[in-house]
Amino acid sequence: MSRLRLTISMSLDGYAAGPEQSLENPLGLGGMRLHDWAFQLAAWRSAHGMEGGETNASTGFVERTLENVGATVMGRNMFGGGPGGWNTEEPWEGWWGQEPPFHHPVFVLTHHPRPPLELTGTTFTFVTDGIESALEQAREAAGGRDVTLAGGAATANQYLAAGLVDAMLITLSPVLLGAGERLFEGVDDLHGLRLERVTAAPAATHLEFSR
Amino acid sequence: MSRLRLTISMSLDGYAAGPEQSLENPLGLGGMRLHDWAFQLAAWRSAHGMEGGETNASTGFVERTLENVGATVMGRNMFGGGPGGWNTEEPWEGWWGQEPPFHHPVFVLTHHPRPPLELTGTTFTFVTDGIESALEQAREAAGGRDVTLAGGAATANQYLAAGLVDAMLITLSPVLLGAGERLFEGVDDLHGLRLERVTAAPAATHLEFSR
Repeated sequence: MSRLRLTISMSLDGYAAGPEQSLENPLGLGGMRLHDWAFQLAAWRSAHGMEGGETNASTGFVERTLENVGATVMGRNMFGGGPGGWNTEEPWEGWWGQEPPFHHPVFVLTHHPRPPLELTGTTFTFVTDGIESALEQAREAAGGRDVTLAGGAATANQYLAAGLVDAMLITLSPVLLGAGERLFEGVDDLHGLRLERVTAAPAATHLEFSR
Repeated sequence: MSRLRLTISMSLDGYAAGPEQSLENPLGLGGMRLHDWAFQLAAWRSAHGMEGGETNASTGFVERTLENVGATVMGRNMFGGGPGGWNTEEPWEGWWGQEPPFHHPVFVLTHHPRPPLELTGTTFTFVTDGIESALEQAREAAGGRDVTLAGGAATANQYLAAGLVDAMLITLSPVLLGAGERLFEGVDDLHGLRLERVTAAPAATHLEFSR
């Protein structure tokens, strides 16, 4: 059974991104602080083509988020280049350069059609007919492996509210953002997801739910 | 130095109480679920005059919340009997019966004056001149020991926003309430509070911050 696994970082006050997201601040004002725990990790750095970094209690968590994943679903905001229609003269190709860290098919939810984008190791497919279609396409592409739901908050909340999420790997960062995009907005039922594992790491707390 | 220590339970979506708080549902709809982790504990039950219960990873946390406390500050909503002026014919005496579990002076923030209420082991003093006055009176009553800030969310948020909280003992319950009273509403700075200890217990995660 291919599971849909939400992987996301959240502030102590419940935000998965800060306010005023822009090209300069893709995660909104202060939003990068949500990910401070990852940038210092060797496991995260090597997955993003960087050297160095440390090993700590977050390492095993990062390894678990990457394990057995055959495809990723994300929202258009997370892919970037928006809002609105795509610029066809200089098409936005994501935040990750010519070799994105996914190395498997990625499905981007958007209201604006666009042909697939092939970069080294990763093809982005743009899905305009809703979350269930994106999940179905991702599951087929994953060939029996799991599908990562990468965010952002609005996309995660749609899948959570529909009861389609089989596992949540939430990193709770001990910071306040005060405003931004709330995880769990409009979601009032965990649909059987239970907290099964907690990892206290130096710069964050990892909460793993599954059903 | 007498510290102000916030002790509170919060849902995964950031609520310290559910919606529609009332005499029947003092913690709002679904709000009792925030405290399920405690009701089963021997340490919590004995502090509330009940027998039985179990010992698990939450026990040490509960013991730490009770350690070295000489006074408590709480909001009027937490004391109950509201909203509005006090009923003088049948005065509300709190949720806890004739022997409340505090066994030290409790200061209740309210807009409505009322003489002190003496019950067995606990005197409730009603403070109408603001959070700094309540803290000052509680510190004096605590005689060098710490002061617990017991909530609810609105009162906690006032002290947090003012930078007056020296420690936070937050229990994160793995449930969604979907609505209610948000902890950290209007608070966007931890004023130097840092996450120092995480306890993964069977029914909750305890996060201890201090500065």
